[in-house]
Amino acid sequence: MLVVQKFGGTSVGDLERIGNVARRVARTRDEGHDVIVVVSAMSGETNKLIDYAHHFSPNPDREAMDLLLSSGERVTSALLSIALNEMGYPAVAMTGRQAGIVTDKTHTAARIERIDPKPMRGALEAGRIVVVAGFQGIDPDGRVTTLGRGGSDLTAVAIAGAMGADLCEIYTDVDGVYTTDPRIEPKARKMERISYDEMLELASLGAKVLQNRSVELAKKMGVNLVTRSSFNDNPGTLITKEENIMEKPLVSGIALDRNQARVSLKDVEDRPGIASEIFNALADEAINVDMIVQTIGADGKTEIDFTIPQTEVVRARSAMARFAQSIGAIDYKENIAKVSIVGVGMKSHSGVAAKAFTTMAKENINIEMISTSEIKISMIIDEKYAELAVRALHDAYELDK
Amino acid sequence: MLVVQKFGGTSVGDLERIGNVARRVARTRDEGHDVIVVVSAMSGETNKLIDYAHHFSPNPDREAMDLLLSSGERVTSALLSIALNEMGYPAVAMTGRQAGIVTDKTHTAARIERIDPKPMRGALEAGRIVVVAGFQGIDPDGRVTTLGRGGSDLTAVAIAGAMGADLCEIYTDVDGVYTTDPRIEPKARKMERISYDEMLELASLGAKVLQNRSVELAKKMGVNLVTRSSFNDNPGTLITKEENIMEKPLVSGIALDRNQARVSLKDVEDRPGIASEIFNALADEAINVDMIVQTIGADGKTEIDFTIPQTEVVRARSAMARFAQSIGAIDYKENIAKVSIVGVGMKSHSGVAAKAFTTMAKENINIEMISTSEIKISMIIDEKYAELAVRALHDAYELDK
Repeated sequence: MLVVQKFGGTSVGDLERIGNVARRVARTRDEGHDVIVVVSAMSGETNKLIDYAHHFSPNPDREAMDLLLSSGERVTSALLSIALNEMGYPAVAMTGRQAGIVTDKTHTAARIERIDPKPMRGALEAGRIVVVAGFQGIDPDGRVTTLGRGGSDLTAVAIAGAMGADLCEIYTDVDGVYTTDPRIEPKARKMERISYDEMLELASLGAKVLQNRSVELAKKMGVNLVTRSSFNDNPGTLITKEENIMEKPLVSGIALDRNQARVSLKDVEDRPGIASEIFNALADEAINVDMIVQTIGADGKTEIDFTIPQTEVVRARSAMARFAQSIGAIDYKENIAKVSIVGVGMKSHSGVAAKAFTTMAKENINIEMISTSEIKISMIIDEKYAELAVRALHDAYELDK
Repeated sequence: MLVVQKFGGTSVGDLERIGNVARRVARTRDEGHDVIVVVSAMSGETNKLIDYAHHFSPNPDREAMDLLLSSGERVTSALLSIALNEMGYPAVAMTGRQAGIVTDKTHTAARIERIDPKPMRGALEAGRIVVVAGFQGIDPDGRVTTLGRGGSDLTAVAIAGAMGADLCEIYTDVDGVYTTDPRIEPKARKMERISYDEMLELASLGAKVLQNRSVELAKKMGVNLVTRSSFNDNPGTLITKEENIMEKPLVSGIALDRNQARVSLKDVEDRPGIASEIFNALADEAINVDMIVQTIGADGKTEIDFTIPQTEVVRARSAMARFAQSIGAIDYKENIAKVSIVGVGMKSHSGVAAKAFTTMAKENINIEMISTSEIKISMIIDEKYAELAVRALHDAYELDK
């Protein structure tokens, strides 16, 4: 079996932890598997380098930035390789370039375009453990690029896909994916398996285990992804194709996102194209609009409501300024929360939404906005009811069972 | 004019100093020159990485070591490039690989084999300042190599040679090359010019400004080398071809080396090949033998005296153990010093040595061993007279004039 194991910054945070990672990798090798390890920079290193760069420039040259930022992962990969060799496990450290990872030219936020499997294949066939510096590659001109935040996960998934690995394990400081945040609902249960689509919904809804780019890539390449802890031996959660999940639960998990703000545009001028103008203005500012509801009142007046990340309210205000003539009033509300119910089972079952609304009603929680997809129901509620809503829904769908 | 400027670890020791280096480079550019900058790792970084590696292995895998150690210079080159771009001076950072530096495969102590001038030429023609990460290259297989201690100086000299630079400036924390150590003789004078051969003798005799490998390479490639301080604007010392030095002084400088030990082998067995066996045993242990004197007494008994670095006395003792049968007695003396007089003028003038001996005699200093080359006279004396000897010789040859 070929296993790709990725260890994040916390898992390689100091020399002792790098030693622990070496022992875990060696154990996987002892079980008879071929192993490719992908490592992040030691925690704090990348931020230190970014601070250094900002000492000289608020907006540093991006090519130089990539050269700078790629160095942290090189250090970790070299150290882990040294540790493994010393333990008697032949290992070779590879930079993104040496591992054959070619990206586009978008410096500091590049996309992997292809991976040449030859160098890694050759090292594996020679009986070596391959230790790859994550987060980096080269562009077609041979210049170093980095993949942006979460880039080492992408490296691991892309390698697993290109090499046809049986498993891609992402090690972090959490045990796996839970039915909801255990800090809110102590009865939250770790899931054994979850589909890519459910994971994507949960991730975009605030579950911080994996970034969406990595899950999307895993889905696209059919990579079996496991998220587990590097600090214990618990089995973690497998993220895989829907077909691989035998028992499809009606609801898999409840997600909570507190970083939401609601923008209400009242008495919007009634002319064609006004909505398009408004949302284009937001897109131009790269503001992520999430839920949108448009209502036309009995008096013919239009109200448009949408949610954006709280961190983007200031920029939204400036983007909206130019519509002062066309909108009666604009209201910004930050003390809201988005509670979401995710589950592939919803596709084939009715009544899931009804149960959610009933549960909210029982708790006297007012639902301000609703949006649904094939496998998700999201509700905007007053922030003070957030935990209550999560616990009530977790109970209602019996997720602790 | 094309100028190569190399800044060592102390000169780029923190962000503020990197900023100072950026301003100095910009000033050189303002003077109308093309500039290639070569940088070391920020001081302490390389040692920190070595300590990390030794946490895992007393003898770390050399390929991984090179990947590890090359990262410090990458960081500095990226930061300096960011600083220059921010100041409005277009700059591009290059790793050893990107600068076209190809070495042999001797990992952690590689030799530069060739430099492809195209990438640097292209960047210079585009009006950019080139900032190269020193100390590193790639082997013919494309794997990262490092050049060993002092490697960034070698990078600078090799680039200056390959690019036909008019000048290669090595910036350190000292002003240049002095007639002798100013801490011993306050009247010591900074030299304006000195020949490669004199510099080689002075360097091997303890003047710590430049390593011999760099001076040898500069001599071989005919590179005009300037050593100067990054902390002031003093002009430094030019190290160049003998032909370029108009006034050739009889004596250029006095060097002092305290890291010497004298080994005396008494009553050495009188058979052919015994000396060769002894020095081969020392060579096998990689012990650097410096001066050798052999005397045959009136009684036909042979005495062999030689000097080695003090740090190698322990290993010399073990290497000599096997000759217990062939040698009457072995005496080790560590409190000695080597005082040397260096000058190209000696070649064509007689009486230089005589003056040295007279000076020693006047001060009642006993000379224990003597060795001479075309441009150097070295004397082993009791260590307690070291400073006195240096000052007396400095005076005798009027080096303060």
